[in-house]
Amino acid sequence: MSEVVNLTKELVTRPSITTDDAGCQELIAQRLRRAGFHCEHLRFGDVDNLWATHGDGGPTLVLLGHTDVVPPGPREAWASDPFVPEIRDGLLYGRGAADMKGSVAAFVIALERFVAAHPGHSGRVGLLLTSDEEGDAIDGVRKVADLFRERGERIDWCVTGEPSSTAKLGDLLRVGRRGTLSATLTVRGIQGHVAYPEKARNPIHQAMPALAELAARRWDDGYETFPPTSLQISNINAGTGANNVIPGELRVLFNLRFNPNWRAVQLEQECEAVLRAHGLDYEVHWHRGGEPFHTPEGLLRANAREVLAKFSGAAPVESTGGGTSDARFIAPLGAQCIEIGPVNASIHKVDEHVAVADLELLPELYLELIERMLV
Amino acid sequence: MSEVVNLTKELVTRPSITTDDAGCQELIAQRLRRAGFHCEHLRFGDVDNLWATHGDGGPTLVLLGHTDVVPPGPREAWASDPFVPEIRDGLLYGRGAADMKGSVAAFVIALERFVAAHPGHSGRVGLLLTSDEEGDAIDGVRKVADLFRERGERIDWCVTGEPSSTAKLGDLLRVGRRGTLSATLTVRGIQGHVAYPEKARNPIHQAMPALAELAARRWDDGYETFPPTSLQISNINAGTGANNVIPGELRVLFNLRFNPNWRAVQLEQECEAVLRAHGLDYEVHWHRGGEPFHTPEGLLRANAREVLAKFSGAAPVESTGGGTSDARFIAPLGAQCIEIGPVNASIHKVDEHVAVADLELLPELYLELIERMLV
Ligand SMILES: [Zn+2]
Ligand SMILES: [Zn+2]
Repeated sequence: MSEVVNLTKELVTRPSITTDDAGCQELIAQRLRRAGFHCEHLRFGDVDNLWATHGDGGPTLVLLGHTDVVPPGPREAWASDPFVPEIRDGLLYGRGAADMKGSVAAFVIALERFVAAHPGHSGRVGLLLTSDEEGDAIDGVRKVADLFRERGERIDWCVTGEPSSTAKLGDLLRVGRRGTLSATLTVRGIQGHVAYPEKARNPIHQAMPALAELAARRWDDGYETFPPTSLQISNINAGTGANNVIPGELRVLFNLRFNPNWRAVQLEQECEAVLRAHGLDYEVHWHRGGEPFHTPEGLLRANAREVLAKFSGAAPVESTGGGTSDARFIAPLGAQCIEIGPVNASIHKVDEHVAVADLELLPELYLELIERMLV
Repeated sequence: MSEVVNLTKELVTRPSITTDDAGCQELIAQRLRRAGFHCEHLRFGDVDNLWATHGDGGPTLVLLGHTDVVPPGPREAWASDPFVPEIRDGLLYGRGAADMKGSVAAFVIALERFVAAHPGHSGRVGLLLTSDEEGDAIDGVRKVADLFRERGERIDWCVTGEPSSTAKLGDLLRVGRRGTLSATLTVRGIQGHVAYPEKARNPIHQAMPALAELAARRWDDGYETFPPTSLQISNINAGTGANNVIPGELRVLFNLRFNPNWRAVQLEQECEAVLRAHGLDYEVHWHRGGEPFHTPEGLLRANAREVLAKFSGAAPVESTGGGTSDARFIAPLGAQCIEIGPVNASIHKVDEHVAVADLELLPELYLELIERMLV
């Protein structure tokens, strides 16, 4: 059994359901300390974060990952225990095998080999892990990034190990992510009886033209490989259940996924201008989930493309699609960010798995990228 | 104590919370049988209905009422027991005193006096009572009207005793009611993640322009004294609670209150044309709560106006406002319908009451109207 498979199994055995690290980071810190890394445990609230570095001066390359996993759901739904890793037909099964304990194990092996082969490498290499990526992500990389900002910690390049491949290891190189912005909107009316509409003010009727305008708006035509910015109303609720009462209030949740044409604050202003233009009596709470980021052509992206092409046999698709990742917190520090990881078909599902053959390639893949950047 | 006050108290003592008649109709049937009326108990489901008539041939005048009352709520909220009638400062307190056991008692006294004074009156006079006006109104007058239709029972004039006066007994003559039509609408979309709107179909976004069009539509400019037809969206619900999921379905309740410019079926067609024009994948269930009715100028309305003017000292306001009443079921039989009753300020509230002075006028008022129509 290869070293990376063994380490992945050790990590999967630890039931680190978000935000419980369950000892994963301590195991990794012990190995990296032995390899000569400086390790710092950064605990915020209930969340464990590990910051391990080797070398100093020059550019900094950070490998970014998480040790927490999403809950497995009922044991019976799985063919084997989600926290007892098991290989069947060349696939390693277990919660977190693909998202992303396999990548984390591969990071560790790659870093050990890198500093063994290049004890005097230029620049600095680091590993940043959190136990709160799958949860609220409040006390995880967001807080670490705040700390880095305070300390003046500089990060040049960041490689996230999120499972980004779609059909084959290395077929996709993530070079950006959209931003996300959420709104909780309350529109106030005046409750009344449907027989006397002149004595009431129906907040549903009042809000609909404004909401229709927001939903129909074409915000932009995309940005490089980013899809167009999109607003989606996810929840809308009003009414007492009775069909003879005009409700006094309408509650709406909506979310924007936006490309680098926008900053969150601009979208907030645009939305509120529409709400005001329609004369609504409203209150809105904004939650800025993350600004968009984009890594343009350059040394990191070019090297990553070549490494992926070598390992997968074809140039990767370079994508800015998908949801969000912790890279959203590192990118604003000025880092170029990319994401490279295993096939994501089974993540967050029962019988999550990673191909053993892919897992065994991952340390070499990450190692070659680190060497190209820092040697 | 006058006869009408005594009978009202006897009725209030019976706790006939909808749809329980609690013996009210049997008490009345005994009295009317003694007076020479033919009485028929029509029980549908849990609902008691009483149909009492005197005379035959010629035009039929029906007095229409209900023996059921709305629940009183907590006893402590009332100054005296809602089912123990009590007179304080000239007001008779008790659940149903105004809505509408006072009118029902006055109907009975008026009918007894009428047939005593005019044993060979022309035409036919009837009393129709139900114990399901305040509830679903499914097994009450709606069912009786179906039976009348089957039997070919002809009704020319109908006087409902609903409390219609606003400040002073007789200040308002109800000469029509709007129709009511309810819709339960489901708009189907395709559930998905907000990050991938192109893979989903947001039913909120799809429905909003259609709903905005329905809500903004001016259906008509009113009809004689009827207000304009109005559509109100009373309930709207979609969403899983999470702000990252595009819901698969939107549920909407809306209600139309409409004047005699429309029949329910026409409004259903108009609404569905809008839903279809917007390409919605929808399902709608219609509930026809009642068609509108309107009693134009004629013998009944003219006599009622004169009687009210005589008893209240001024010509009444002739109105088509308010909610619905059981007259909606009798009007489609071809009857002219009006509503005359006591002041409605305290109905459906704690400490419901009727002025004893008004109550004592009511039998004379109804008697004079019956005499004008049938003598
Ligand atoms: Zn992940
Ligand atoms: Zn009533």
